[in-house]
Amino acid sequence: MRIVVLAGGIGGARFLRGLKQAAPDAEITVVGNTGDDIHLFGLKVCPDLDTVMYTLGGGINEEQGWGRLDESFTVKEELAAYGVGPEWFGLGDRDFATHIVRTQMLGAGFPLSAVTEALCARWQPGVRLLPMSDDRVETHVAIEVDGEQKAVHFQEYWVKLRASVDAKAVVPVGAEAAKPAPGVLDAIAEADVVLFPPSNPVVSVGTILAVPGIREAIVAAAASGTPVVGLSPIVGDAPVRGMADKVLAAVGVESTATAVALHYGSELLGGWLVDTVDAGAVTDVEAAGIRCRAVPLMMTDVEATAAMAREALALAEELR
Amino acid sequence: MRIVVLAGGIGGARFLRGLKQAAPDAEITVVGNTGDDIHLFGLKVCPDLDTVMYTLGGGINEEQGWGRLDESFTVKEELAAYGVGPEWFGLGDRDFATHIVRTQMLGAGFPLSAVTEALCARWQPGVRLLPMSDDRVETHVAIEVDGEQKAVHFQEYWVKLRASVDAKAVVPVGAEAAKPAPGVLDAIAEADVVLFPPSNPVVSVGTILAVPGIREAIVAAAASGTPVVGLSPIVGDAPVRGMADKVLAAVGVESTATAVALHYGSELLGGWLVDTVDAGAVTDVEAAGIRCRAVPLMMTDVEATAAMAREALALAEELR
Repeated sequence: MRIVVLAGGIGGARFLRGLKQAAPDAEITVVGNTGDDIHLFGLKVCPDLDTVMYTLGGGINEEQGWGRLDESFTVKEELAAYGVGPEWFGLGDRDFATHIVRTQMLGAGFPLSAVTEALCARWQPGVRLLPMSDDRVETHVAIEVDGEQKAVHFQEYWVKLRASVDAKAVVPVGAEAAKPAPGVLDAIAEADVVLFPPSNPVVSVGTILAVPGIREAIVAAAASGTPVVGLSPIVGDAPVRGMADKVLAAVGVESTATAVALHYGSELLGGWLVDTVDAGAVTDVEAAGIRCRAVPLMMTDVEATAAMAREALALAEELR
Repeated sequence: MRIVVLAGGIGGARFLRGLKQAAPDAEITVVGNTGDDIHLFGLKVCPDLDTVMYTLGGGINEEQGWGRLDESFTVKEELAAYGVGPEWFGLGDRDFATHIVRTQMLGAGFPLSAVTEALCARWQPGVRLLPMSDDRVETHVAIEVDGEQKAVHFQEYWVKLRASVDAKAVVPVGAEAAKPAPGVLDAIAEADVVLFPPSNPVVSVGTILAVPGIREAIVAAAASGTPVVGLSPIVGDAPVRGMADKVLAAVGVESTATAVALHYGSELLGGWLVDTVDAGAVTDVEAAGIRCRAVPLMMTDVEATAAMAREALALAEELR
């Protein structure tokens, strides 16, 4: 079975770990969000790709959900001693090595997709990890500070400001001109199932869908019978983790399991899983033409996550 | 008193520490060798500039003579886990931060001289440290391996091969087209004394002199009465440290205190200090028109080094 998953960072990575357990023989292609990518200290940092790679490769800091296990921060402390920041982004020494290798390879002319493949040769994540695009896309968030409008990089909004101010708009800068990375459209066209994990619908899955060609490929696959199933990142009217409500508000979507399903829409989604606490949403979602089931959606451990993945694959079978 | 010192790495840095103690009120300008510079992991590494900066700024690994005190090697280990080398060059985590800042600033368009000044703002070395040039100069060494001629970067010859094969030639690639960094020629023209510390005469001082304009400026200063005094890096027919004999042989110079003085020549040098064990060299050096004194030249500690610096300054006074 060939499965394509559109993944953001922590939520996507944890879901993938469960999916691998649920479908050990599946060929899984992950289309990773790169809108969170940021240049720090002259180095190219790809937080979502790395979170997937480290999580599936056994190198993740489990409690934190991002960054490396057993990490130290000597380089960052030294950079601060030079007065060089930002200090709000937690790059550890082990993590720095990844960004150094990536930046060196990009500088030598390799596209991000080839670089990601090379990094994965070490981590053996057990999935094919593709960036959504080899072209630079950078999610910016429009905010108002002291009555003044400004746009900040998504990481500044998320990590530095901790989404403490309202997002007026979320713009994937560069997306219009970006092309899907090699392999992305073919993987979607050849997929038996396409899954949207409980990742952020705006800045993770939404950014991937903003790359011209990707949404269209999924719509075409769905139209030709490929089941497309999503899992709600909203449980009981609140994001399971992160501050997705802030960016959902920016695109005029309520933080409910139903609203997110309708935001994706039936053209894209064939099936949608909501948490058991949101069982009341099933009727509304189905009324919009999206098959819906209420099942436990808390990724408390790999077992629970694998059960979610099985539910998603079962719903996909139903749709076939 | 304004003193200009042409410095390589370890020897130059240690001499400068003694000089600062011997002449605490002097304005010292260091023209640093950049022919040893190398790009590693996409980062610009300037071993000689950093050795001077760390040594005078209190950050050096004292026993080793290069690299940072209290260093760790996490980044390097991680790079190796990615299969990315070279492993023979010992870059530590603290040191990496310096190269990351430097590379970022160079990438932003600052010349190496401005970057060096910015790095020194942290280290406060107590001297003005100028790279010999903002242009790229890279010392290559011609060697013969299994009957085949090849050229390797100086660091590969020195650090990886540990000068275990004969150097057929030493070529400062790019020197012909390099310009002295801003401030270098003015500092020489305005100097009260120019000193050649016991650095490598070929790959350290020799490379600095290979930048068009620098040798000429020193010759002109000497001609107009500025004392130029050198300290022999050869004691008892052997280099005090390093493998200078290998690269001296490549330029056809014997490893003796006399031969090195004659290699520099009386056009450049007004005075030359040899070690007391080489007292027999004084007559030959003076016969070549270079004032010579035999004094202890082992930099065993800062006191001993300060005494050497005082001898050099005393000889300069004699020449005035």
